[in-house]
Amino acid sequence: MFDLKNYIQTNNKLIDKTLDEILQLKTNPGQLAKAMRYSLTAGGKRIRPVLCIAANEAVGGDSAAVFPVACALEMIHTYSLIHDDLPAMDDDKLRRGKATCHIRFDEATAILAGDALLTLAFEIIAAYGLKNTNFNSLELIRLISRAAGARGMIEGQMQDIAGEGTLLSQAQLEQMHSLKTGALIEVAVYSGALIGNAGKAQIDALKIYSRKTGLAFQITDDILNVKGDPLIMGKAVGTDLKQNKSTYPAILGLKKSVEMSKNLIKDALDALTIFDERCDPLRSVADYIIKRQR
Amino acid sequence: MFDLKNYIQTNNKLIDKTLDEILQLKTNPGQLAKAMRYSLTAGGKRIRPVLCIAANEAVGGDSAAVFPVACALEMIHTYSLIHDDLPAMDDDKLRRGKATCHIRFDEATAILAGDALLTLAFEIIAAYGLKNTNFNSLELIRLISRAAGARGMIEGQMQDIAGEGTLLSQAQLEQMHSLKTGALIEVAVYSGALIGNAGKAQIDALKIYSRKTGLAFQITDDILNVKGDPLIMGKAVGTDLKQNKSTYPAILGLKKSVEMSKNLIKDALDALTIFDERCDPLRSVADYIIKRQR
Repeated sequence: MFDLKNYIQTNNKLIDKTLDEILQLKTNPGQLAKAMRYSLTAGGKRIRPVLCIAANEAVGGDSAAVFPVACALEMIHTYSLIHDDLPAMDDDKLRRGKATCHIRFDEATAILAGDALLTLAFEIIAAYGLKNTNFNSLELIRLISRAAGARGMIEGQMQDIAGEGTLLSQAQLEQMHSLKTGALIEVAVYSGALIGNAGKAQIDALKIYSRKTGLAFQITDDILNVKGDPLIMGKAVGTDLKQNKSTYPAILGLKKSVEMSKNLIKDALDALTIFDERCDPLRSVADYIIKRQR
Repeated sequence: MFDLKNYIQTNNKLIDKTLDEILQLKTNPGQLAKAMRYSLTAGGKRIRPVLCIAANEAVGGDSAAVFPVACALEMIHTYSLIHDDLPAMDDDKLRRGKATCHIRFDEATAILAGDALLTLAFEIIAAYGLKNTNFNSLELIRLISRAAGARGMIEGQMQDIAGEGTLLSQAQLEQMHSLKTGALIEVAVYSGALIGNAGKAQIDALKIYSRKTGLAFQITDDILNVKGDPLIMGKAVGTDLKQNKSTYPAILGLKKSVEMSKNLIKDALDALTIFDERCDPLRSVADYIIKRQR
């Protein structure tokens, strides 16, 4: 039986170490660097880097080589959280049980720390690509910036804000989430595969896996907002309902939402049948995504 | 006599056309794309792309090839203006005679439009690099992200905010500006040279040129804030003094500031003696930078 907890802990230690080294090397000491570090080390689940590393292993890659890119993905995710939490956006004061960046520092610092993390992500991938020429790092940058940008994550956040107060259809909700969270999760898996020089059949399978898993991840987020434990979550629950947000439980009901997320994970796992046991981490992550408590 | 006005007009038309094509191709229609387009076409001077194009010509490059990268630099510059104008930062309501992005739209849209422009810049350079392999586009991405990031432009903005209300020394002011505006101007020149496959002596000369010109540009900005015409500038003047900002006129006095900017441009021009007449656009831009009225 694959020990996911141990796998995640081991990898998270390496991710934290790599992030720490990057910050030491690539920032000047001061308020900006402090805010970047604060948010990067605020206890995130590290789902995206772990997916990148696990996908790399699944296709037979050498996982050590993938860490800088995995960290760049976590930087992009963290920047998006910092900006989403701002007063002009979701106005969240708490994230993962800690004060959000603009509460701990101030709004200007939070905006700039987010900007700097996004920018640093591309610096890291470019620097990494200059040293590692066995894969197409320009293609990686193109795909990651696309997934994170105006036809991906940022457009999703825009749609999320625009949709506040109106109940979206299931199709609209799915599109919004596939942009807001799905795109970056998909490209995290793809990045690991690309760096591991995956073949076409492997990439096709991983695309299905990441799309289904990404959606299940979001549905679970919505479910946890209804019935999660605020102490474990590190943030308030029930806020979606109060803010009249379109969520899967609101549209489908809780029972159907749970069912849907389970079916998605089943489909995701079915897509992985072409892989051997080196794919077990990816399989376990899919399972964890709907069983998690936060 | 080189006709700079005509040169800038011709290039700006091409820059605008390229920017328009990029936005059409790389964004979805909607509020986000509207805000990105609004700020990109709000009448900027296009100094950075013009410097990139002119540097490319100076080293004998084919300037048509440089436009996507020149536009990416303008996107990064525009994103930085959108974020700097936000209420949590400089809280500016007017920019280039038009409402700033968060006034015309709203704060959330402005934050996201800035994020999207920054992200799109890297997508454009990566896509361009995939098609044009005659120069090192990964190195270009590394240098541009570095110049725009936590050891460049963003750190400069952070220092600018942190220094508000205290009179900086001339050395502190120079460091802040070399980060906040200098770094991106320098990398704009460098990008053009790199794409044109410049030699080492050419690059060294252009580094001196861009450093001196960048500083002169900032000093002129400070001078225009004292004695510029608000109608030509499209924004209020005298604001630095009111906000107790550290500026060159405040530290050195107006007369010495004018003298210093002239000397810097003289040094910048002296560095260009190794180039032939294909460098005339760069020479003219340096001259324009201190003679401009806005």
